[in-house]
Amino acid sequence: MLIDLVLPAVLDTRTGGLTLRRASARDLDALMTLLSDDPISSSRGDTADVGDRDAYQAALEQILADAANELLVVVDGSDVPIATMQLTRIPGMARRGSTRLLVEAVRVSSALRSAGIGGAMMRWVTDTAAPTLGSTLVQLTSDAARTDAHRFYERLGFIGSHVGFKYPVG
Amino acid sequence: MLIDLVLPAVLDTRTGGLTLRRASARDLDALMTLLSDDPISSSRGDTADVGDRDAYQAALEQILADAANELLVVVDGSDVPIATMQLTRIPGMARRGSTRLLVEAVRVSSALRSAGIGGAMMRWVTDTAAPTLGSTLVQLTSDAARTDAHRFYERLGFIGSHVGFKYPVG
Repeated sequence: MLIDLVLPAVLDTRTGGLTLRRASARDLDALMTLLSDDPISSSRGDTADVGDRDAYQAALEQILADAANELLVVVDGSDVPIATMQLTRIPGMARRGSTRLLVEAVRVSSALRSAGIGGAMMRWVTDTAAPTLGSTLVQLTSDAARTDAHRFYERLGFIGSHVGFKYPVG
Repeated sequence: MLIDLVLPAVLDTRTGGLTLRRASARDLDALMTLLSDDPISSSRGDTADVGDRDAYQAALEQILADAANELLVVVDGSDVPIATMQLTRIPGMARRGSTRLLVEAVRVSSALRSAGIGGAMMRWVTDTAAPTLGSTLVQLTSDAARTDAHRFYERLGFIGSHVGFKYPVG
């Protein structure tokens, strides 16, 4: 948990009525569903398979116990998670000792895309979370196939200046 | 400090005699010099300016105190740092609850490039550090202008599947 973040927060979207809050152990199934609700994620194995529940649960417990990480969900008026993202605060030496804020695993329910939810989440990251955490750089990587997402991040002021490399271990 | 890592370690390079160890507060000036010894870094403000020393020192203290981060240096037989990199262990939900190992700020002294040092560092990350830390994915981003570095990572088995986005705050 990134204890300095002030949460829950009202999310500034067109539709209104959405809240950004910390994820909890109770959100496990909703998080599995959100991750599987995306063709690229599901092609990597995130299919909300009940056989993977223990692995997701162990991961969720680790994230919730980690002082450098925050797992967030956006919930509607019935507290049902409709979007998620993870933040990691990373102190560093480069760029004159800049602390970075890494954003991972941003997912919005497919039924609710293009409603401004993702934009409101990222605006909260850049305008509220990053300053609160003393981060002067927000960074993320996006699969090269997600061309719509790239336009979305560019509209928000992100610069696609880097190539993201991955190495699968073992 | 990532306490599970077994360090110092002998680095497997052609020349031999190199050791990978944890950075300490005494390495501050050497780290500032390594960061400035690179045209892209220096263009971003890492010029080893004495006026920035306090900011680097504060960052170094934060990294050394952080349970999810490890700052490493490669030293020669006289314990002089000739290369550095930072590792961050990040638990996550995506990819069936995969823990990632993020590599940042990899720098090798310009006088010693193409001597196999960077390759030996990355091999240690993928083959030793990642399994020790339970990470099934190693990831990093590299400035799009670093085309030589991209070939280097691809030769090591990294896949440049993502676009890395950055947002400067404030």
